[in-house]
Amino acid sequence: MSKEGAPSPESLFDLRPEERLDDLERNGFKLIQKPSAFCFGMDAVLLSGFARVKKGERALDLCSGNGIVAILLAAKSESSRIDALELQPQMAEMACRSVKGNGLSDRVFMECGDVREAVQKYGKAVFDVITCNPPYIRAGHGLVNPTDGKAIARHEICCTFEDVAGQSAQLLKPGGRLYLVHRPERLMDLLSTLQKANLEPKRMKMVHPFLGEPANMVLLEAVRGGGSAMQVEAPVIVYRAKGEYTDEIREIYGY
Amino acid sequence: MSKEGAPSPESLFDLRPEERLDDLERNGFKLIQKPSAFCFGMDAVLLSGFARVKKGERALDLCSGNGIVAILLAAKSESSRIDALELQPQMAEMACRSVKGNGLSDRVFMECGDVREAVQKYGKAVFDVITCNPPYIRAGHGLVNPTDGKAIARHEICCTFEDVAGQSAQLLKPGGRLYLVHRPERLMDLLSTLQKANLEPKRMKMVHPFLGEPANMVLLEAVRGGGSAMQVEAPVIVYRAKGEYTDEIREIYGY
Repeated sequence: MSKEGAPSPESLFDLRPEERLDDLERNGFKLIQKPSAFCFGMDAVLLSGFARVKKGERALDLCSGNGIVAILLAAKSESSRIDALELQPQMAEMACRSVKGNGLSDRVFMECGDVREAVQKYGKAVFDVITCNPPYIRAGHGLVNPTDGKAIARHEICCTFEDVAGQSAQLLKPGGRLYLVHRPERLMDLLSTLQKANLEPKRMKMVHPFLGEPANMVLLEAVRGGGSAMQVEAPVIVYRAKGEYTDEIREIYGY
Repeated sequence: MSKEGAPSPESLFDLRPEERLDDLERNGFKLIQKPSAFCFGMDAVLLSGFARVKKGERALDLCSGNGIVAILLAAKSESSRIDALELQPQMAEMACRSVKGNGLSDRVFMECGDVREAVQKYGKAVFDVITCNPPYIRAGHGLVNPTDGKAIARHEICCTFEDVAGQSAQLLKPGGRLYLVHRPERLMDLLSTLQKANLEPKRMKMVHPFLGEPANMVLLEAVRGGGSAMQVEAPVIVYRAKGEYTDEIREIYGY
């Protein structure tokens, strides 16, 4: 069959200046990215691999950015519906075009809004699963990126970890699961904040760049109203040698 | 030089029935063990490798058992003095003979006593370092070993984790470090109990039997009055293949 006259991917995704279209290596899905705004990293990909979404479950992705986690979850799971919330209008609009371009408009619902108002928006005890790749850096710490969008994505300017935990505890059904990726330096803070919000940390996976190096990311699963028993899973090791991914990472990335 | 007439190791250690003398592969040190009472495991050896004791520092080993951690610390560090406390008189007495047999009576001071009375015994803010390989199992959980001594070593019958944290917080100097080995299942409990006692968890190292398996031990360093920033170190992997230790374990064991 001739493909003459078929729309190009670029037109399907309605690509704008400075934007590029990246192949996600999953179900043929693609993602619009704008390097000057924010590009997803390995953390988002690992989070989508760590999260467990069962068939028919309803999921919500908070701090959704360009929609990477929500779209990967749609590719990897049989969830019934995935909502996604992003504060920055330009990012949310870009993510909406990625959802549409991938033909996911009936499963992924991207909206622009504030995490701190998520319960107001969606209601209480609605979700089986929440995922979140939040800003890592405490407000007032570190150099704030002069480009506002990047600063909001990286620093707790508009949304602290307390906000994420507090809202998630209400948004989740009893027994519902919150999946997070964050930095190990903040582990004590994360764990105690989750526990205070009645989200019991149950599963933890460390990510080490190399086998002999400290962790630079931590993946966490917390359960609303869960009992206290922690499972520390096998670590993720990113590189087997310089520039050479381990089999696990290649599999998560779909290479 | 003839060794005729030199005392045998067995007589130096005054070995009793059912006891055996194990080589610690460090400084020629040996340890009396009584298999029917309790034998040390890899946890104690890993703890002695994880603890950092600087030259001239004063250390205390709690729940000292047959003295394995205290004697390994004497071998591996330049601490000025190591106190060690064990509740069970038979174990403490056996550990005393190990200390004497190794010629460590001027550096290692083994005593029989209750962890819950350690502050009374030693005083406040005395130690730079405390090590502890406490009973892992909550009182009332799991099958209690019918042989009393083993039950006390494994279950929180005579000493809970709260006791260890509470006493350590007072025994340590400000900035002093507590080193622990425990089970990952209890991680949330351990971390929150330490933090409540003003012992801030600062360093964590997971121990995995194999690279692709969950952790079965966790090593923790907490600092009295420390600020909140966690370092998650490279994991310890015990076996590279079935029955074959990794280089790291061989080095810790001194093979």
